Parts: sequence; C-alpha cells; structure tokens
Amino acid sequence: MGPEGYACKDPTTVTSDDFVYTGFRGEKPTTNIFRNHLTLAFANAYPALNGLGIALARLDFAVGGVIPVHSHRTSEVLIVAKGTIIAGFIDTNNTAYYKKLEVGDVMMFPQAMLHFQVNVGKTPALAFVSLNGANPGLQITSSSLFEGNLPGEIAEQISLLSHQEVTRMKKLFGTT
Amino acid sequence: MGPEGYACKDPTTVTSDDFVYTGFRGEKPTTNIFRNHLTLAFANAYPALNGLGIALARLDFAVGGVIPVHSHRTSEVLIVAKGTIIAGFIDTNNTAYYKKLEVGDVMMFPQAMLHFQVNVGKTPALAFVSLNGANPGLQITSSSLFEGNLPGEIAEQISLLSHQEVTRMKKLFGTT
Amino acid sequence: MGPEGYACKDPTTVTSDDFVYTGFRGEKPTTNIFRNHLTLAFANAYPALNGLGIALARLDFAVGGVIPVHSHRTSEVLIVAKGTIIAGFIDTNNTAYYKKLEVGDVMMFPQAMLHFQVNVGKTPALAFVSLNGANPGLQITSSSLFEGNLPGEIAEQISLLSHQEVTRMKKLFGTT
Amino acid sequence: MGPEGYACKDPTTVTSDDFVYTGFRGEKPTTNIFRNHLTLAFANAYPALNGLGIALARLDFAVGGVIPVHSHRTSEVLIVAKGTIIAGFIDTNNTAYYKKLEVGDVMMFPQAMLHFQVNVGKTPALAFVSLNGANPGLQITSSSLFEGNLPGEIAEQISLLSHQEVTRMKKLFGTT
Amino acid sequence: MGPEGYACKDPTTVTSDDFVYTGFRGEKPTTNIFRNHLTLAFANAYPALNGLGIALARLDFAVGGVIPVHSHRTSEVLIVAKGTIIAGFIDTNNTAYYKKLEVGDVMMFPQAMLHFQVNVGKTPALAFVSLNGANPGLQITSSSLFEGNLPGEIAEQISLLSHQEVTRMKKLFGTT
Amino acid sequence: MGPEGYACKDPTTVTSDDFVYTGFRGEKPTTNIFRNHLTLAFANAYPALNGLGIALARLDFAVGGVIPVHSHRTSEVLIVAKGTIIAGFIDTNNTAYYKKLEVGDVMMFPQAMLHFQVNVGKTPALAFVSLNGANPGLQITSSSLFEGNLPGEIAEQISLLSHQEVTRMKKLFGTT
Repeated sequence: MGPEGYACKDPTTVTSDDFVYTGFRGEKPTTNIFRNHLTLAFANAYPALNGLGIALARLDFAVGGVIPVHSHRTSEVLIVAKGTIIAGFIDTNNTAYYKKLEVGDVMMFPQAMLHFQVNVGKTPALAFVSLNGANPGLQITSSSLFEGNLPGEIAEQISLLSHQEVTRMKKLFGTT
Repeated sequence: MGPEGYACKDPTTVTSDDFVYTGFRGEKPTTNIFRNHLTLAFANAYPALNGLGIALARLDFAVGGVIPVHSHRTSEVLIVAKGTIIAGFIDTNNTAYYKKLEVGDVMMFPQAMLHFQVNVGKTPALAFVSLNGANPGLQITSSSLFEGNLPGEIAEQISLLSHQEVTRMKKLFGTT
Repeated sequence: MGPEGYACKDPTTVTSDDFVYTGFRGEKPTTNIFRNHLTLAFANAYPALNGLGIALARLDFAVGGVIPVHSHRTSEVLIVAKGTIIAGFIDTNNTAYYKKLEVGDVMMFPQAMLHFQVNVGKTPALAFVSLNGANPGLQITSSSLFEGNLPGEIAEQISLLSHQEVTRMKKLFGTT
Repeated sequence: MGPEGYACKDPTTVTSDDFVYTGFRGEKPTTNIFRNHLTLAFANAYPALNGLGIALARLDFAVGGVIPVHSHRTSEVLIVAKGTIIAGFIDTNNTAYYKKLEVGDVMMFPQAMLHFQVNVGKTPALAFVSLNGANPGLQITSSSLFEGNLPGEIAEQISLLSHQEVTRMKKLFGTT
Repeated sequence: MGPEGYACKDPTTVTSDDFVYTGFRGEKPTTNIFRNHLTLAFANAYPALNGLGIALARLDFAVGGVIPVHSHRTSEVLIVAKGTIIAGFIDTNNTAYYKKLEVGDVMMFPQAMLHFQVNVGKTPALAFVSLNGANPGLQITSSSLFEGNLPGEIAEQISLLSHQEVTRMKKLFGTT
Repeated sequence: MGPEGYACKDPTTVTSDDFVYTGFRGEKPTTNIFRNHLTLAFANAYPALNGLGIALARLDFAVGGVIPVHSHRTSEVLIVAKGTIIAGFIDTNNTAYYKKLEVGDVMMFPQAMLHFQVNVGKTPALAFVSLNGANPGLQITSSSLFEGNLPGEIAEQISLLSHQEVTRMKKLFGTT
C-alpha cells in the first residue's frame, strides 16, 4: 500500500479482491481466559487499509465474556450486532462512563482512554468496532502487566497491587 | 465537545448517555428515489464524536435500492449486516473495483474517491460504515449536479451530458 | 524525496535544477473532448514536491473549453492568468457557488468538493491552481463513470442517468 | 491562545512573562501514596502552549518513589536530572523494555503505550519529560481502575483481578 | 470559516463573493526599501481560506527589487508571471540552491527553510506563490532583527554581526 | 523505525538499549565561534525517535556563550538546568519577547519563529530543549547566510547588509 491507499502490489495485478476483507465470516471460538474472540482487521491482516487511516475489529463474547480493559492510540466507535453488553471508558479524572447497550446502539471511546465491554446478557454477544488508524496499537492492560516479561516485582511497584495478587495473575497468564 | 473529545456541555452535567448514540435503532423507510435510507451518525447528530476523528452511518437498502455514487473527504470502511450488495469505488485512473459482498464482508473506500453500493439480492439489505473524520462531508454526485441551484446549462458544460438528459434529471429531482 | 523535502537522489548529486519545474513553459494544445489541457505538476512529475504537501497545475482553455466537474482530496486555490472564466464548487447541501472571474482573481475550492471551470470569454483562457498535497488524487466525474471499466448498467443504477444517456456517454469516451 | 501559538489574551497586553513558565521552581513534596510529585506544565497550567503541540512535566521521586504505570495519547521523552531510576514501557506484544538510567540519560515512550519510572537509588530522584501535545491526557492505570467511580464488580471482570484485591485497592484509594 | 471550510458568517448570508479574492487586481507600488510589494492572500485577508490549509501571495518586484530572505512554517511553490528572477533556498547544511527562472517556471521552497527571490531582469517582475497553510506566519529575517524592538546589543550577540553594522541596519529600518 | 515507533531493526534483536540515548552524558566543549555546544538527539542520532514526533537537544554555554538566532519547523520548549540565560523569540510582527531565566524556568518558542538564548550569567550554563518532531530541521541564520555556498553578492541583496559586513562575516566563517 502506498501513501495514497493503493496496494504496494504491482498495480497491474491488483484486483477488487485486494480491497475486500472476508475474515469476519463464520463462527469464532470464545474459549480463551476472557471468553472472547478478537478478530482484528488491522493493516497487517487487511493490507488495503495501509495509508487509509482506518481499521476494524469483530468482538465475539461468550455468555459472561469480556473485552478486558485496554487502550490504543486511536479513537474507536462500537456497534452492537447481537446481545446486550455494558461498554464504558474511564477519563483522565478517573470518572467511568458506562452504559448497557442494545442491538444497534453505538458508543464511542476517546483516543488512548482505557475502555472495556462486558457481555451482561444471557446469550453470546457480537459487536463491531472501527478505529481511526490503520495500526491502532491495541494494548490490554492485564496482559501488559502479567502476560509478558515484566518482572513481578516491578509490576507490584508500578501498580500498588499486592505481591500475592501479582503472583496469582502471573500464574493465571502462565508467566511464573 | 472540546478538542480532547469531551463534551462542550458543562462537564458536571455530562453523563454516560452523552457518549451513546441510539439513532440506529428500529426500522428505517426506504422509499426515496434511490430506495435507500441513510442514517448519518456524524458529529452534528452525535456530538460526542467532535474531536474524535471518526463517524458512522447506517445504510438501508430496499430490494433494488442503491447508495448512489458519492464521495467525501474521509476514508470509509463498510460491513454488510444483511443481504447481498455490490460495492465498489473508482480510482484516479477511471478503474472501477467492485465486488459482490456477503454478510460479514468488509470493503474499504479510499479518501475522496467516488464509490457506491447496490443491493443485488432479493431481500432488503443493511450495512454499516465508519469514516475517519467526525464531519466527513458527504456529497452525492447526481444530487450535486441536479438537485440544487446549479444551472442546467452549466451542468451540461461541465459533464458533457446532453441537454435532454440534464432536463430529465432536474425534473426527477424537482428542480426544473 | 525524503520526508523532510529533500530528494531521494544521492544527496551529493542534487542540484538546483532538481527543485525547479519547467513543464509549464510553452503553448499547450486544447483539442481534447473538453477543449482543455491540464498540465499537472504533482509529485510524480515534479519529485521535489514529495513530502512538501503542495502541488500545482496549469489549466489551458480553448474558446468554450471547460475543466469538467471533478474533485480531489486536497483543497485548491485558482488564479486566472488570461481570459474570463466561470469557476465554482458545489457544497454538501447541493448549493453551487460560482462566479465570473477576471485576470488576477482568485477562487478557492474546499477539500473533496466537486468543482469546475468554464471559459466564458471570447479568447483562450489560462489559469494556475495549487493544491495542499503532493498527490492530490484528481478524479474527473464523467471520466470516472464513462471512460473506464465501470459497466454501463452499474453506471445507470448509481447515477439514475438513463440507459440511452449512459450509452451515449460511453460512446463519446470510446468505451462501448 | 490562538491556533498560531499566540495568547488569546488581548495581543496588546501580551508580555514576555506569558511565554515563560516558572512552576518548576523550588522543592516539591513527595508524600503521596506513590511517594512522587507530578508537576504538569500542560496547556491548562501554561496557556502559551496552546496550539504549539508540546508540553512538559517535572517528576519528583522520594527514595522508593514511583511514577506508576500510565499512558497518554502523546509520545514522551524523559531526561534524568538527579538520581537513578528504572524507566520502561510495554509494547503491544506485552514485551517490557526497561533500563536503569543515570543522570543525563534519555528514554522515549511511544504514543499510548503503558510506561513507568521507579526510583531505584538511595537518594531522591528528579526527571523532566516532554510530550508532543499540549493536552496529553495522562491516565494512571491503578487510579483509573480504583480511585474513581468504576464499580468494583466491573473492575474485577475487566481485569481478572480478585475480588479481595480489588477491595484492597479501592480501600487504599479511599473509594470503598 | 468553520473547520470544514465554510464561512463563519451566518450560512444563509454566504454568497459566491465570499469565496473569491480580488485583492490581486491592479498595479502595486514597489517603492519600499526592498523595491517590492507583497500582497498576502492569507486567511485574515481572505477569510474563506480558514480551515482549507492553503494561502497565496502576489510578489511584485521593481527593477532590482528583492523579496528578502525569509521563512514561514509552510512549504511554498512559486510561479513566475513576468520578468526574470533568481529564486533560491538554503538547507539545514547551509547549502544554497538557487536558479534563474523564466516566465512560467516553478520553484518549491521546503517548510521553514530560509529562501529569497531577486529580480535580475531589466524589467519589473511578477510572481505568485501558494503555501500549504492558511496562516503561514511569514517572517522576514532582516526585519525581525532590525525593524522591531529587539535591542541592538542582543542582535549583535545572536548574529555575530558588528556593532557598527547593527547600528546601520537599525537606522535603515528607523529603529535607532 | 517503522511508523509505529518501533525500530526498523529486526524486531527479534531489539533491546531496551535501543530506546535509551546516552549522548547527553559528560562534559561538552564550548570552544566554537559561538562559545556553545549543541548536542542534537534528533532521529538520525537517536533512531528510536523515528515516527514518534519528538526530539531533544542539550545546549551548553560557556560564559558569554550564545545559541545564535535560528529556526526550525517544530515548536520547542526549553528548561534551564544550570546558570542564567536570556531566551527569546521574535514574532511575525517583528516583536521580540525575551526574558532572563533561572534554573528550572521553562520557555516556549513557536513553530518556525526565530529564537535565541544567551548566557548572561557569570558561570557556564546548561539547558535542555525538546521539539515536537523527530527531524526538526535546525537552521542557524548567520550560518545559512555566511557559512555555506551562498554568494556574498546575493547575501547582500537579500539582507540589505553592507558589502563590507558580508565580507567580514564570510571571513569569520571561513568562506571567502
């Protein structure tokens, strides 16, 4: 993809298929620790988005599933396709704005602010989001702190979480 | 809404409701000349988007309905929610890229390029789009040329369309 | 050209000539279907503009010549060098703003809005435009619809133009 | 402040003092729960920055003090003025990059990524940061989750932290 | 003018005249110290440019006239309308790129780099420039140093110019 | 460095060291013609800044040392670490805003405006600046005019400086 939004492929070989993304088709498993499935149509998965300043994701929730608290450098809008979720974000004054959303409802999440979605209905839920950047840089807070190589001792110091809890979380994420 | 994405309302009166848009709920009539219904969740209808750089729209198509050829200053991504549509855009070399899309399929439309969607299925269709700007500046080509105050004589000169056709189109849009 | 506005050529071989564009010199033929000649000093023709966010074009009009209705992702300003033209644009409410311009007059055209220029004088006309992007992405509406590979059937559906007129236009552009 | 970086004050009353910020002078107390003191020279405190796209902060650390894990919509660079700190950030793959810094060392933190600083020396520490935005939108992760109005039950669901730990943290922040 | 490029005037009172600038008409005196005349069609003189990201200027040169060395935060392109000028810019390595230009020739000047134009022909010269910003922030180097309130002593220190020369220049600009 | 702020190095070989810059350590000589030393932590010296939109510099002043009048395409903020300096900038109306700064004081310099710093104390001085761009494009006015290949004759014409002074300056910079 060049800066103008056309594919970096040899232009003579570009076809309409290059501009269409079909990765949202079908059923998605929701068996991970958060009982969700994230399908990211960001530029690495959907190269036609390069240079366009926009991306999408499909959010699948099992009953009780959540998209855990996370952030990214772009703004986001969400639309509920199935089920009933609570969606919300927290602002720089630590005020949380959250609301139960029905099918067809839309909620926005400002650039870089922590936000989350929780399936509070009795059925699986489905939502789609779009983000105003082709490479949004998604960062899940608990995964950042406990799922990678950050030493538990530092995680404690920078979060004020207890030694016991950090140990529990690292065990949950398989990093002890 | 201030530049940081919070409402220009007195901040002490902001509630979660200010961040949620419910205008996509319910059925929409598709009885206009294009047999479509556009529900625009742009910043004027959904003020929380101000400063966020993103907007949405819901596209309803009757059987045979179309979103006529149009453009805007933002990029766009579309996701099909119901039905079967052909979506496409035309690039600066006059090459059209278009494809039949099924439910769940996504297509992107580069910034400012002419594009369109046509319901080619036997049932009504529904799609959602998002755009990377809070005020995308939607301009429908035929409406621009024939539905406003542009004199028919100028419309002919700048499009090479025939006098007879321009007259027909202005009659169709009620501007003769 | 790097992002800082200097040529991607080996810097030791860059000379002042790399920063000067001489393609606007001389007479230009105005014998095409629009009786105009567009000389585009965009980044592909004038590589020193890469990374600078600006480009130019020279517009030559025969008597009766037009720059047909078109759009691009950048804003534009025009200055009349010779002759008398009507220039205008159409906004998102389908309102056309147009005016007869004399030598030295300037008109602006907002980003992505359809606009046009018509030589309404008794002599050839000449104008220069500049655009705030090195790759403006010029798209001529009638050429987009009739000069490329867009099937006539789709062109009809997305414009509401008649079958007869679409056929006439494609014949005019040599694509039937 | 207008868009050009000059004060919105009556221009005839602007003096050099309006462009200078003196809030970093003197000693700062480091007695809060994190044993730090943040002095933010963002646009609300230093209005001359409006429209300039840049801001600063002074970071004071008691012995053992930390700047807890946080994020903002801008990039950041830090320079150590006194003491020895460990600074780091976590990327979108959950990889933490962190390093012990001496006086004069600089570290960068990419836009919107979680990052932190810990005084690991035996004396108080001092650092200055700058950020490429006049209103960076600082969000401290633990404060977002536990210091505001987010219900503990939601905090648990979206972080996977235990009920017991969430209760402990809310007590620590005085919000139970 | 709002951020979308339409006038801040009551929209119902906007006419085509608001989008046209006629200040480049007629003859301009070239009797100042530089034997030039600058006519700036920036946003304050041509409000329709607000939000469009582009501006223009007309440069008139008497025989021997110059546009003295200057800079601005935008990039610039120049087109020669009459006469013969030498135009050039200096890059960050102190390399000057300059060239004699004929009617119709174009030269570009990268954002914020010092540049200049000199009429080297035997007749008056005329050029037009455009800049990719509505408020380019033009700053003429000699005027900045000698025509305002900067004390001569500081001017000497920060330029290494001699006391005698600074005194001569301030006398020339009427500020001793 | 890719557009997302991570190194263009093979990602598997990136370490924390790649994100830290140590070039500000130690003493710097201040024996040049301006009795200063500029240490630029711009993207070419500190590649991790690529794509981050921010850069830094260390300014060392001998007694009587100056950072001569200069400009760049970014905004800048300065913080005084040692000594007493006068810092200032000149706006587009030729008004100079300048002030004596003590340790800890901050001053901002708007994008592309000429600015300067002078050590007015009896000891060496030290300051740090940051700029909201990874490649600010620093241009020192006197060096631009006298230290490179710009012919003295042109330098005179475009500055109104005397032949005698231009000759003296070029001798000072070793370019006659």
